[in-house]
Amino acid sequence: MSGDGAEVLARATWSALVEPGDTVAGTLVGLLGAVEALEWVHAAVRDRPDLARLEDRTGPLSGADRRRVVKALARWAVRLPGCDPRRDLAQLDRLGGALLVPGDPRWPSAFDDLGVEAPFSVWVRGEPDLGATLALSAAVVGSRAATTYGERIAFDLADGLSADGVCVVSGGAYGIDAAAHRGAVARGGRTVVVLAGGVDRAYPAGNARLLDAVVGSGGALVSEVPPGSLPTKSRFLQRNRLIAAAGRATVVVEAAWRSGAMSTAHHAARLLRPVGAVPGPVTSMASAGCHRLLREGVAVCVTDAAEVRELAGVTGATLLAGAAADRSADDRSARRQDALDPVSARVLDALSRRVPFELDRVASLAGVTVAEARGAVGLLELGGWAVRRDAGWVAVGFATP
Amino acid sequence: MSGDGAEVLARATWSALVEPGDTVAGTLVGLLGAVEALEWVHAAVRDRPDLARLEDRTGPLSGADRRRVVKALARWAVRLPGCDPRRDLAQLDRLGGALLVPGDPRWPSAFDDLGVEAPFSVWVRGEPDLGATLALSAAVVGSRAATTYGERIAFDLADGLSADGVCVVSGGAYGIDAAAHRGAVARGGRTVVVLAGGVDRAYPAGNARLLDAVVGSGGALVSEVPPGSLPTKSRFLQRNRLIAAAGRATVVVEAAWRSGAMSTAHHAARLLRPVGAVPGPVTSMASAGCHRLLREGVAVCVTDAAEVRELAGVTGATLLAGAAADRSADDRSARRQDALDPVSARVLDALSRRVPFELDRVASLAGVTVAEARGAVGLLELGGWAVRRDAGWVAVGFATP
Repeated sequence: MSGDGAEVLARATWSALVEPGDTVAGTLVGLLGAVEALEWVHAAVRDRPDLARLEDRTGPLSGADRRRVVKALARWAVRLPGCDPRRDLAQLDRLGGALLVPGDPRWPSAFDDLGVEAPFSVWVRGEPDLGATLALSAAVVGSRAATTYGERIAFDLADGLSADGVCVVSGGAYGIDAAAHRGAVARGGRTVVVLAGGVDRAYPAGNARLLDAVVGSGGALVSEVPPGSLPTKSRFLQRNRLIAAAGRATVVVEAAWRSGAMSTAHHAARLLRPVGAVPGPVTSMASAGCHRLLREGVAVCVTDAAEVRELAGVTGATLLAGAAADRSADDRSARRQDALDPVSARVLDALSRRVPFELDRVASLAGVTVAEARGAVGLLELGGWAVRRDAGWVAVGFATP
Repeated sequence: MSGDGAEVLARATWSALVEPGDTVAGTLVGLLGAVEALEWVHAAVRDRPDLARLEDRTGPLSGADRRRVVKALARWAVRLPGCDPRRDLAQLDRLGGALLVPGDPRWPSAFDDLGVEAPFSVWVRGEPDLGATLALSAAVVGSRAATTYGERIAFDLADGLSADGVCVVSGGAYGIDAAAHRGAVARGGRTVVVLAGGVDRAYPAGNARLLDAVVGSGGALVSEVPPGSLPTKSRFLQRNRLIAAAGRATVVVEAAWRSGAMSTAHHAARLLRPVGAVPGPVTSMASAGCHRLLREGVAVCVTDAAEVRELAGVTGATLLAGAAADRSADDRSARRQDALDPVSARVLDALSRRVPFELDRVASLAGVTVAEARGAVGLLELGGWAVRRDAGWVAVGFATP
């Protein structure tokens, strides 16, 4: 947890209190800020809504707007007593996760494009620097009822994108989503799964191992609802807007005429993100949605990873920016290093990445006792910062432990 | 042969004298008219080119233009002695064909869109009213090296278009072209084969039966070069512009990255005709050209006959116009009727389409003897104009015999 504690707690509360995409809540938080807006809700539930305070910011509210606010308050009042952000954050902590809020340097600014529909906070399991992860990204989505053809294409696209350092974003569902995540993981790429329920819930259960593999290979599971939240139908629909926002471009690999992937494509189009569609046999109903997107001019035709990369605006210039992002990955490691105890930090500084040093040499360089050095390298080894080689100890790049 | 005899002979000569798409010839005929332009060529070959006469129309010619004219004359001079339009027309006559020239009511005005590259005349075998045939039309083209998928789609598109009275235009080649013609013939639709060589040459030979079937089901074989002409490579390329011009829209079903079908699509685009491309598996090289056309915005995505019909602008209004074309089909039948001997024509006029008449009634109504009526209905039956029913004779719609 980083940033202002009250702000984080308030945003954790908002993400539990209201359903994703609640524009009344989004407007209220936009007007008053997360903390004040929550206090305003508490007071409104205890007493009565202080609409005059809102009108100080907005000017006179219409009757319809007043009714929307009052109706929203009635919904929130039911859930408010059960909200416990500290419990949710403790649960996230047990998962080794991080809560990101706007202003956190790891917050993905891409989500800000959603305006009043932006998530209040994102609950992340795995790599916490979502902003860096999504700097070069493409959403690869499609039907659960995919064909062998579609799954092969999704896998190959994700493989090719990962080879170029483009993060593949998808929804973790069976079919195209899973094939895309698999292609990224197989290539050792980072991939982001945007879940409709909490990040503690492997959904669908059949993809539990895949989701673990995503986390294990430097990717992340992401949700705008706290751990323990169920993946409901409306949350699936709202989740699609996050996928669309997270990708610099969205590619539909296979989709029926009406489907969640089509909704993701339309969300991306509304966000003015480029949309691609992979063509397929016109005899395949699984490609009908893709062809519809092409016919209606919502999507451009994409047939391989290079064309998706082009769609996502990943040019030579952005690949250079990607190198900069790698440097900022070093910065992230530097921040993590800040979290080490002082002795371990000094020992780590003393280690070379290439030349193994004996413990007494390490202790001497670090200015610590040999016993302290022995304890420190043990901790650093556990954290993945150092390894023992034949002749002594070396630092391990700045690999994420 | 209809229209001014000298004009027809001159245009038959031009189509034998110069290669398709010769813009010097097109310009010359545009300036002087076909007859005068030919006389000008004869004089130029005998003596020297009277460039001043051209400059009376064009203003001063540039040096480059003068050199182009002189160079073209040198080419034409080689062929001029061998040109024999009467021989070519006699050969066409033996095939039961017709030569169409601009001004003939059967001339397809669509070809005029080609400007100086318009054909001088078209040699037609089969249904001679090409203008009426192409009133509702779509070109369906693609690779010779087609897949089973592509051939199935071409067949189905042609079947569906034919069911709606839309004439399918293609090039008679193996693969997609043949499948398209077959789909039209199987549905009993008219289809037009634009050949690179003469209409007496079934090319490729393996499609000879198919080309006969096209003629047999009310379609036509069309060429801008006289009977006996070889289908050379440059004529294949020029032929594509006629296919593109003949269709209200052009649809590419399957095409490799570079192929004749791609050239047809680009011809159609230059003529501001709508272009469609049928998507296919991105793993299929046979669909790579289609996907390229989609990506480059040259073509829109089409997946079935209804979408092609829409592309060709075949709306309710054009279907009404189609009904008008059917009336003009009646006019065509009326013209054919003019070719009947006077007794048969009077007998045909006397017949009802619904109420069978005995022979003596027919004779009485037609004002002929019973013996004449008997002979006439026999001829009319052979020609498909009349049939015998239980109680007597009826006229048959205005069906083409």
